[in-house]
Amino acid sequence: MRIKVINPNTTASMTALIGECARAVAGPGVTVDAVSPRQGPAAIESHVDDALAVPGLLQEIADGESAGYDGYVIACFGDPGLKAARELARGPVVGIAEAGMRTASYLGRGFSVVTTLARTVGHAHDLTEEYGVARQCRGIHACEIPVLALETDPHARATILRACEEALALDGSDAIVLGCAGMADLCHDLSTALGVSVIDGVAAATATVEMLVRMRLRTGKLGEFAPHPRSEGVGLSVGLG
Amino acid sequence: MRIKVINPNTTASMTALIGECARAVAGPGVTVDAVSPRQGPAAIESHVDDALAVPGLLQEIADGESAGYDGYVIACFGDPGLKAARELARGPVVGIAEAGMRTASYLGRGFSVVTTLARTVGHAHDLTEEYGVARQCRGIHACEIPVLALETDPHARATILRACEEALALDGSDAIVLGCAGMADLCHDLSTALGVSVIDGVAAATATVEMLVRMRLRTGKLGEFAPHPRSEGVGLSVGLG
Amino acid sequence: MRIKVINPNTTASMTALIGECARAVAGPGVTVDAVSPRQGPAAIESHVDDALAVPGLLQEIADGESAGYDGYVIACFGDPGLKAARELARGPVVGIAEAGMRTASYLGRGFSVVTTLARTVGHAHDLTEEYGVARQCRGIHACEIPVLALETDPHARATILRACEEALALDGSDAIVLGCAGMADLCHDLSTALGVSVIDGVAAATATVEMLVRMRLRTGKLGEFAPHPRSEGVGLSVGLG
Amino acid sequence: MRIKVINPNTTASMTALIGECARAVAGPGVTVDAVSPRQGPAAIESHVDDALAVPGLLQEIADGESAGYDGYVIACFGDPGLKAARELARGPVVGIAEAGMRTASYLGRGFSVVTTLARTVGHAHDLTEEYGVARQCRGIHACEIPVLALETDPHARATILRACEEALALDGSDAIVLGCAGMADLCHDLSTALGVSVIDGVAAATATVEMLVRMRLRTGKLGEFAPHPRSEGVGLSVGLG
Amino acid sequence: MRIKVINPNTTASMTALIGECARAVAGPGVTVDAVSPRQGPAAIESHVDDALAVPGLLQEIADGESAGYDGYVIACFGDPGLKAARELARGPVVGIAEAGMRTASYLGRGFSVVTTLARTVGHAHDLTEEYGVARQCRGIHACEIPVLALETDPHARATILRACEEALALDGSDAIVLGCAGMADLCHDLSTALGVSVIDGVAAATATVEMLVRMRLRTGKLGEFAPHPRSEGVGLSVGLG
Amino acid sequence: MRIKVINPNTTASMTALIGECARAVAGPGVTVDAVSPRQGPAAIESHVDDALAVPGLLQEIADGESAGYDGYVIACFGDPGLKAARELARGPVVGIAEAGMRTASYLGRGFSVVTTLARTVGHAHDLTEEYGVARQCRGIHACEIPVLALETDPHARATILRACEEALALDGSDAIVLGCAGMADLCHDLSTALGVSVIDGVAAATATVEMLVRMRLRTGKLGEFAPHPRSEGVGLSVGLG
Repeated sequence: MRIKVINPNTTASMTALIGECARAVAGPGVTVDAVSPRQGPAAIESHVDDALAVPGLLQEIADGESAGYDGYVIACFGDPGLKAARELARGPVVGIAEAGMRTASYLGRGFSVVTTLARTVGHAHDLTEEYGVARQCRGIHACEIPVLALETDPHARATILRACEEALALDGSDAIVLGCAGMADLCHDLSTALGVSVIDGVAAATATVEMLVRMRLRTGKLGEFAPHPRSEGVGLSVGLG
Repeated sequence: MRIKVINPNTTASMTALIGECARAVAGPGVTVDAVSPRQGPAAIESHVDDALAVPGLLQEIADGESAGYDGYVIACFGDPGLKAARELARGPVVGIAEAGMRTASYLGRGFSVVTTLARTVGHAHDLTEEYGVARQCRGIHACEIPVLALETDPHARATILRACEEALALDGSDAIVLGCAGMADLCHDLSTALGVSVIDGVAAATATVEMLVRMRLRTGKLGEFAPHPRSEGVGLSVGLG
Repeated sequence: MRIKVINPNTTASMTALIGECARAVAGPGVTVDAVSPRQGPAAIESHVDDALAVPGLLQEIADGESAGYDGYVIACFGDPGLKAARELARGPVVGIAEAGMRTASYLGRGFSVVTTLARTVGHAHDLTEEYGVARQCRGIHACEIPVLALETDPHARATILRACEEALALDGSDAIVLGCAGMADLCHDLSTALGVSVIDGVAAATATVEMLVRMRLRTGKLGEFAPHPRSEGVGLSVGLG
Repeated sequence: MRIKVINPNTTASMTALIGECARAVAGPGVTVDAVSPRQGPAAIESHVDDALAVPGLLQEIADGESAGYDGYVIACFGDPGLKAARELARGPVVGIAEAGMRTASYLGRGFSVVTTLARTVGHAHDLTEEYGVARQCRGIHACEIPVLALETDPHARATILRACEEALALDGSDAIVLGCAGMADLCHDLSTALGVSVIDGVAAATATVEMLVRMRLRTGKLGEFAPHPRSEGVGLSVGLG
Repeated sequence: MRIKVINPNTTASMTALIGECARAVAGPGVTVDAVSPRQGPAAIESHVDDALAVPGLLQEIADGESAGYDGYVIACFGDPGLKAARELARGPVVGIAEAGMRTASYLGRGFSVVTTLARTVGHAHDLTEEYGVARQCRGIHACEIPVLALETDPHARATILRACEEALALDGSDAIVLGCAGMADLCHDLSTALGVSVIDGVAAATATVEMLVRMRLRTGKLGEFAPHPRSEGVGLSVGLG
Repeated sequence: MRIKVINPNTTASMTALIGECARAVAGPGVTVDAVSPRQGPAAIESHVDDALAVPGLLQEIADGESAGYDGYVIACFGDPGLKAARELARGPVVGIAEAGMRTASYLGRGFSVVTTLARTVGHAHDLTEEYGVARQCRGIHACEIPVLALETDPHARATILRACEEALALDGSDAIVLGCAGMADLCHDLSTALGVSVIDGVAAATATVEMLVRMRLRTGKLGEFAPHPRSEGVGLSVGLG
């Protein structure tokens, strides 16, 4: 089984970290390849970033189809381009926000999300509505660390831990969902420090794709997600310069 | 006052029709310019189309800001890129789905949408949730005419009229919202034939932008829609090859 | 085009102020007449006030129909009698709460309402549900100034400004909606002081009626809002002594 | 204990029937007086009717307070003026729609409403939302008999029975709620014929007021429903000619 | 009329108190018998307690059917086994949470619940959703007194009064619902001290069953709540050792 | 890793089938044991069945904890006793309705459920609300085959296939969820015949528990699901005679 994990931003160090976290959770016999688009924003922290990351992401899906991947992970907490990717791919496609939050729903009554910038909280709320976890999600907390500073800010881990502690105290949650692919490596540490389960969406989405492929489940192709004639060729050449 | 109406697909004849309908509703002293992106899908009838139309649309917004437009209309019923456009523009940006459906909400208890392909109905439902008109929207009806066939199919008008009649009978609605910018010119005809108000989103959105500009109202810029540093330059060069 | 703006309370000075604000936003060629009912409460700040204002308001609509008005504004933030008025009038009828809040929905993710007395907050919440803006409305804040004191209290403007500032800080909103027709004249001042759009419902409703009339849109008359035989004559004579 | 049952329309024969049905359910030691306002519409089947019935209804509440009644029933399925009546009365006030539908909620998963004219169905839907029974209410069915024809149409009973049978078949409900005070006397007959519980709102509301009074429960008077100074005197003289 | 009030826990002193409170509200001619199951948890304050109390409770319903009771109250605020009990009984079955909260809905815009342990708050929230009172319920407040300590803790009454005061201040509610059958005797005292109606679910449920029986209303038996063949005999012998 | 799959009914042939389907999906190194309670209903198709199955199920969880299992599946589509089981177990517990429906949510816009008896449809609807999949679930269809007849009725497979076909046609769904553990073995066959993914909840729940254990995620134990002192010993002896 081959799973392609796509980091929709173009920061290679983050793609490497995401790949490691995805491979750590994959079962025996599962190959995980982590990639970035050739072009696109270096980080995704605005609606413009989100929109401009999608063409490159879709190109990676199209390339993945040629290469015969069994399923895909979209490794950005905004789940950019998820529906379009489902239209293009034969196998399952899972976003890390949807997998992170749905997985958390199995662990009790509610969870809290700890994410990067406050300006992204509105979009995360929209996703809780779309994925049917609005009632389970008891709070979305920004720690105001920009995505790319997660790798460089020496206080990042401490700031995130404090945000998790505050979230638990305020929300009375049963679990924490990390709201950025760039936080994936902090997961086990935080869980130990907090005494509750901490969910990294990259791991959750990778394990979910593996599960779906093993169960031979794939996106319904009879209606909204049927392939569209124009998507082959002309469509994808647009926007990829 | 100058309003830029952006048809996010690249079909020039449709852009011309949209421009006429927008100008027909604009008040005295309002200049309306209708444009298409340089690159992008010829019609928008899938999630992939929707995603690939956005970079070109955002470039038009960025160019419009340089040119000093007061406000913008996004003239595709899926309202692609609306939030990203609001991030880029100083003045108001209005989509034709949101304006069409919110305007219909003033006309009674509920409205029906008549649109092109069944595969777009799911996305239209999502928009009714996002815009808070889910209860008012009593049905979304596809007449299975592809967007580009609206101009060429000699039976298009009759098919749409029949879909409207069926929608009214089934939903008991107080108004019809046309679910495609390419139907804009049919509005008055259908209204006369049906005996209820028929709303063209292009007209509704243009009149709404005019109203917002006249009232000096604009997108809030203190949080989610604040300009993002990376959006200038690097960001927009991506995807526009 | 002739629009009749009805202040449902009987305080003439407030009617004058409302008329000025409505005329300030109306386009060229639009005549705006502001009136009050002959009988009714001097201010509307309870459920009883709201109920007793309606017969006089409906008489104004009936008179307006004889006089050939094209559309109507109901200029009280509780939107009293809105559905009954739609039943009586041929053209569109718009309330200032619905227009104020729907207009605010175009300006970002959410808005806050700043209103007069806390006892009216529950009704305003009901309206957010009815108009489909419950999610967009992030808070309704009372400044505890009775309606009639808006004209006489020398600290009214400062108190309202402070309430707006607190609302923005607490709710993280993209805009403020003023929750009383008697605040209409404060709109531009507050907007300048706060740095976000402030929406006066009187202006929003007047501009919306103008837009609907220009687009030839009117209330659906095939069902719930069809004229009712008994409403002519007998009905309206009741309650107007 | 004295309960005042107010039929908000002015048709005396209907008031008599309502009084009988209310008295039939009242416990020992409970006096039930059924009245109509002096002025108002003869039947309530439009938004205008509903609005114009309220001033007379509120006068009956005010008179009832002077006469020392312990509680009130508003005996019209639209529950007109309910919130204003709660503001005026010291004891509990219950509408027949709210009592009929909440009582039905104890009898299984869902109920169907069978009512008079289709034009009132929208308002009944609004009430299901307001009273929190929207999910329990599986359908609202109009049998197109005008309110006043309930007494004169020889086929009324058969038509209503058929509408109930269709409602049960379509909705799979556990009970029927009769959607008009004028149907109160049909309740037991229909229940026998249908084999499910049929709820008359007049009986349900009368029994509920009796229960609330016995438990010494009354409307909260610390906020929204506190008496309002202006309601005494000036207020009520308005609209009652 | 004979009503059986079942305390689903096995603490006899609490059953006695519940019986007294139920009899205090019952009308003339109504016999109320309060009982506990022969086996089961001494108090119900966890999901396991709730589950293990149900077989004994159902045995009491089955025995009650043989003895010819007209209706039943389930006297634990979690309403354990309510749907199963409705399946077994011919007459109405009412839980104290549903009756307490629905009764409170007649008294204004909203109510607050004051209950025992924080760990039960989640389940109480679920019940507000199920009973359609989620909007009316403005807060659920735990005073952290275990159920059995209600009888022995000398500070229990003062702690509960303080929790009620805080709930009213925080929620702006029109009434308080007591969230445990063991608090039933505090109802009138608290009401006097607080100046708002305080609802004891035991009284509310008993009065509601009396009302339903008097109106000859019972659970619908055509579908979900029809008797199930296997429930007689084999079924009930299980789990009752 | 050891997973205990509990069939809450006592029909051994069904437990065997469930065990096979669970083992078929488990990854290398995962041991799956399928068991039934010693006592309880032979099938679960009513609220009484559901309630009476829980004590035996909880005993299996308690025994499983002594035996050191890593996680549990509750293999009945009503997910009986799920919250109580989460309270007792250290590791994750997953129901087949929640896993089946959440898994289906990854495959497109919506799914249909095909289940056994119509009398269980109401409970399945409640679960869609509880699990946040109410919008994704486009229909729940009963094929009126009792649970135990699934093994003996020679037409069962054909009847279920027809119900699936009708569900797809009516609901326009992207996937089918099988609404009974006894249908687990039909999954791949139906999927091939229908051309859409068909989800067996037993497989979905087993794979989900495996995923959660691999990710070291477990139920939050700081609040609602903390172990309760009384659950050890006394509690569980009740009801298991």
